[in-house]
Amino acid sequence: MSLNLTILGCHSATPRANAFPTSQYLVINNKHFLIDCGEGTQRQMRKYKVGFSKIDHIFISHLHGDHFYGLVGLLATYGILSREKELHVYGPKDIKEVTLLQLKISQSHAKYPIIFHELKSKESELIYEDDKVSVITIPLNHRVYTNGYLFTEKEKPKKLHIQNISNYKEIGKADYLNIKAGRDVVLSTGEIVPNSELTINPKKPISYAFCSDTSYKPNIIPIIQNVDLLYHEATFLADKEDLAKKTKHATSKQAAQIAKDAKVGQLIIGHYSGRYKDISLFQKEAKEIFENTELAEPGKIFKIE
Amino acid sequence: MSLNLTILGCHSATPRANAFPTSQYLVINNKHFLIDCGEGTQRQMRKYKVGFSKIDHIFISHLHGDHFYGLVGLLATYGILSREKELHVYGPKDIKEVTLLQLKISQSHAKYPIIFHELKSKESELIYEDDKVSVITIPLNHRVYTNGYLFTEKEKPKKLHIQNISNYKEIGKADYLNIKAGRDVVLSTGEIVPNSELTINPKKPISYAFCSDTSYKPNIIPIIQNVDLLYHEATFLADKEDLAKKTKHATSKQAAQIAKDAKVGQLIIGHYSGRYKDISLFQKEAKEIFENTELAEPGKIFKIE
Repeated sequence: MSLNLTILGCHSATPRANAFPTSQYLVINNKHFLIDCGEGTQRQMRKYKVGFSKIDHIFISHLHGDHFYGLVGLLATYGILSREKELHVYGPKDIKEVTLLQLKISQSHAKYPIIFHELKSKESELIYEDDKVSVITIPLNHRVYTNGYLFTEKEKPKKLHIQNISNYKEIGKADYLNIKAGRDVVLSTGEIVPNSELTINPKKPISYAFCSDTSYKPNIIPIIQNVDLLYHEATFLADKEDLAKKTKHATSKQAAQIAKDAKVGQLIIGHYSGRYKDISLFQKEAKEIFENTELAEPGKIFKIE
Repeated sequence: MSLNLTILGCHSATPRANAFPTSQYLVINNKHFLIDCGEGTQRQMRKYKVGFSKIDHIFISHLHGDHFYGLVGLLATYGILSREKELHVYGPKDIKEVTLLQLKISQSHAKYPIIFHELKSKESELIYEDDKVSVITIPLNHRVYTNGYLFTEKEKPKKLHIQNISNYKEIGKADYLNIKAGRDVVLSTGEIVPNSELTINPKKPISYAFCSDTSYKPNIIPIIQNVDLLYHEATFLADKEDLAKKTKHATSKQAAQIAKDAKVGQLIIGHYSGRYKDISLFQKEAKEIFENTELAEPGKIFKIE
């Protein structure tokens, strides 16, 4: 059970020499995901040594350029790299048409299958699940249809506490399934051995919520409650709350309020507007409401063991 | 009369941390052009301080991703920057459809007009002309329909050599148009004053030929004959001539042969395949055939005064 999140890009749309639009590389429970793919993402992946072939699932929050203009270049590169295995792309309706047209016109797509999962629901839904991780959408409120994504490790079964079990000669392998399922054992003497004595609890599953772009939207709180790590956009400082509302973005203060109310473990903020030269002001503002706030920066890695 | 060429990107398609796909910013006779626009071009423009608003004409050689995947991001940025004046985009058929679909789906295009000039001809044609510069296509041979572009300054009219003219009292303003047109003056004595004594020749117009991507194609030589500056792709070294032929690219040796046979002033090579770690080998190989060869590198500026 572990999480390793690499920020590839975390700035808003206006290009600057040292600004990179949104993209994140998430490894959770040994599964590898790419989240958003702004222009230049594949170059950032090379810079921060992300293994291209490890990624089989790409999640796009919305179809603004600073979140998906880098997708087609990455898919074309997979062709150059002779990829053969399936690639899954999750994102809003239209992502398939626009991506396939670009690949067709640039004659870039090779033989690996691209499977598009086009999202339309305005309710949170389960969109990915395997034996290690599940992913559900977090419906957000932006100028276009937008989803955040909640990544959660699957809970592992209880482990047998073999040493404690060996203290009871009459408990045998025939009991193991019941013990793993959480049942107590009743000995022939009538003595009850509590399950807690016979098992080791698995580690708590780690969860990560990615929320960009969105206006302040408190009704996401029930979905992201108690996550270990929350990324929430903070395009503006509180002095531009009106502009945030108008452009359907959030302020740093609002991101921190969401983190506080959802009782998350740690907050990462990003998507800073180019108007702010000193991004430490975002952290300062957020910390007044939610102390455990970190700034997204390209190349920064967040780990949970 | 002057030329200033900034290399924004000059590498082939495979992404690397310090590689940037093809794009060049050309200022010729005070007109500003962008040539090709691979992914990340707008970031390179910021890095090398190219004024976005100066560019009204963008020329795309072909629709492989490493030459045009950055176009839509740049056009979207012009929207963010509240551009109002026309932007002209020249490139192969389909460039309009794919670009407009992306802008529509990402709801990115603002109110400035984008005028697409879709090219189909396999013969060299005049595609742009104003009072300072003309641009004609250079049909190339690549895996998809591809054009290079030849930028040529307009020849200025002869200037009057006022000091010399003043030596002849009977030559007056009435003669000026004829003198500018190149005619000699016959004095009342029957003496002929040669035009060369009465005029100053304008500076020779500067010309720049951009040729990427292409296999070795000697029949471009009549088009690019005697240009001051030639950019010619050199994806491989001569030891990979077979691979160059197969992928319709050129070797450094072939680029130099074109430069030599076309009697150009200077050769710039670029579009290096990622397989070569030491790009100085490209220059070494070319110089054996054409001495005045320079390597394209991001940020490098070539000037002709």
